[in-house]
Amino acid sequence: LARVAVDVMGGDYAPSEVVAGCVQAHQGLGIPVLLVGDESRVHEELGKAGTSAREGLEVVHADDVIAMDEADPARAVRSRRTSSVSIASRLVKEGRADAVVSAGSTGAALAAAVLEIGRIRGVQRPAITTLLPFPGSPTVLIDAGASSDSRPEHLETFGVLGSMFAESYLGLDKPRVGLLSIGEEPGKGNELVKEAFPLLERSGLLFIGNVEGRDIPTDRVDVVVCDGFTGNVALKLLEGFASYLMGELLKIFTSSDEAKQAATVVMPGLLELRETLSPEAHGGAQLLGVGGVCIIAHGSSNARAVHAAVRVASQTADSGFVGRVAERFSGRPGGRDDRGGPQGRAGLGTTKGQE
Amino acid sequence: LARVAVDVMGGDYAPSEVVAGCVQAHQGLGIPVLLVGDESRVHEELGKAGTSAREGLEVVHADDVIAMDEADPARAVRSRRTSSVSIASRLVKEGRADAVVSAGSTGAALAAAVLEIGRIRGVQRPAITTLLPFPGSPTVLIDAGASSDSRPEHLETFGVLGSMFAESYLGLDKPRVGLLSIGEEPGKGNELVKEAFPLLERSGLLFIGNVEGRDIPTDRVDVVVCDGFTGNVALKLLEGFASYLMGELLKIFTSSDEAKQAATVVMPGLLELRETLSPEAHGGAQLLGVGGVCIIAHGSSNARAVHAAVRVASQTADSGFVGRVAERFSGRPGGRDDRGGPQGRAGLGTTKGQE
Repeated sequence: LARVAVDVMGGDYAPSEVVAGCVQAHQGLGIPVLLVGDESRVHEELGKAGTSAREGLEVVHADDVIAMDEADPARAVRSRRTSSVSIASRLVKEGRADAVVSAGSTGAALAAAVLEIGRIRGVQRPAITTLLPFPGSPTVLIDAGASSDSRPEHLETFGVLGSMFAESYLGLDKPRVGLLSIGEEPGKGNELVKEAFPLLERSGLLFIGNVEGRDIPTDRVDVVVCDGFTGNVALKLLEGFASYLMGELLKIFTSSDEAKQAATVVMPGLLELRETLSPEAHGGAQLLGVGGVCIIAHGSSNARAVHAAVRVASQTADSGFVGRVAERFSGRPGGRDDRGGPQGRAGLGTTKGQE
Repeated sequence: LARVAVDVMGGDYAPSEVVAGCVQAHQGLGIPVLLVGDESRVHEELGKAGTSAREGLEVVHADDVIAMDEADPARAVRSRRTSSVSIASRLVKEGRADAVVSAGSTGAALAAAVLEIGRIRGVQRPAITTLLPFPGSPTVLIDAGASSDSRPEHLETFGVLGSMFAESYLGLDKPRVGLLSIGEEPGKGNELVKEAFPLLERSGLLFIGNVEGRDIPTDRVDVVVCDGFTGNVALKLLEGFASYLMGELLKIFTSSDEAKQAATVVMPGLLELRETLSPEAHGGAQLLGVGGVCIIAHGSSNARAVHAAVRVASQTADSGFVGRVAERFSGRPGGRDDRGGPQGRAGLGTTKGQE
């Protein structure tokens, strides 16, 4: 099984929940995990979890950590190479791990992956992909926030990456790729979308044209391509609205004794729906286009979410996905994108010149 | 009561549902309505509704109609000045009506309002505002799709328009205005947002900085400012996701006899929630920044939705909102925006030079 390096210092509930998730993934699935963080803290947490470091559950010391609310995580990653997220990424570059997982600052995880592992040649911009797990109609959203400004050719790259991801992860033969816009006809959209449309048409993908916000939860489309700003707004809106609606439902279900009684009958179904829609169950977002598997778990990840992220990371590494991406892009120009490096939602605009 | 001109030929259920809604608004609320459309069709529909044209319920003939799926509605509006939506807008310009309502093509309604009524001096770009009716935390979203590409100064204008709308419509003293972005800190976002931020800071509005997608359903913010592309994607995503979730809930509630039984208890609360969240109950979107009240109702409007739109249109006209906007912008440069006219979601890019 592929080995996973986990930044156990990143996340709202780090290190305890993160270590616990790693232990569960190792003990339950046999996945070799490298726990990267403050040595004494990690050993302590392992003790609390009733275990200790051993083969397949190794501790790699990191004396620094990039905080969740770091104002400029990209800069921090460049200047603090001994942070847990940097070291975890470097383990992939060095071949000691096959995948990296972090629940810390998205901007830091992104910057560390680009800086330490590096982009795949031919991929101008890495992108974050998220699986929106609508039952019966899961949808891959790409870019969910790796860049904040994109050019038309980046959207074409996102289409290729997203389509390959859907093939691999959802087992689809020819995923239907749609371009997120504000009208279905080819001429509709902002300048970026209008220019990206013909590029996607010529891409060889199964491009179904423009799709709208309302199509995302439906079975019309498998891969929704957009710039990272729009994708991140959409993703967080879905999260916020789902949590808002669950709150309203709870109010209805507790509004009277009769309603409480009735709720007990439908509650299992509702909890199942919430579970299905929960990002925790699906291992988080993946950064595509870098030379290794990189999972960016939700900041609020608990042990269960970390467990899922480690599982998905190991499976993705074993599937050979990154190699296939490298092959697919091998014919493309590999030069740096000199009009700006990958931009994190956390302002990763200054990684240019790195790599 | 302010008089409302209604494009009765526009909308998925036109003219029957639209005429029915007009009749209800006239009979129930005493609002004077001008029904603009094919004379014989309209008289026929009035007959079906058990009434006939009379003072306060007048028919204005229009021999043409811009179809919902017109590929270039802006061009169609410019070349077909006798269409129902154009004539309805012109009635406002001529002072025969105080407000216009259309459930037809958004692009056509937008183009007709700009062409026939005209922009308010000093407003470079009109914007569509939508009230997202979250119970306890209604949120004004602006721009919901009038422009597909915006400049930073447009976002500042949207902030002013949205704030004035929230004052007037929600009765707020100092609405909290947020800039939709992908991180809360001032430096986060795409180039457009980063440049708009200081403009909003200096605007004199109660600007609370960046907000994220997840803040929209909460009570953190009253007015969410964004470019029309992002706003339209967000609006349609909310619509699609709400309808998706309602479908999933229905599945749960019909999964067994026991569940059906339980559902009868909680159903009234759920229907109330759906009703509250329904765009139909709130009169649709308003186009702000033109010299008259212009309501763009949902294409799928039924009689009830049209009734609400006519009511809101009349109330808004009576409130003197447009006059206050004109006053607020009177000190600003009134010249045309020569880098591009208002852009409809339907590609209104070519209205420049008009007015």
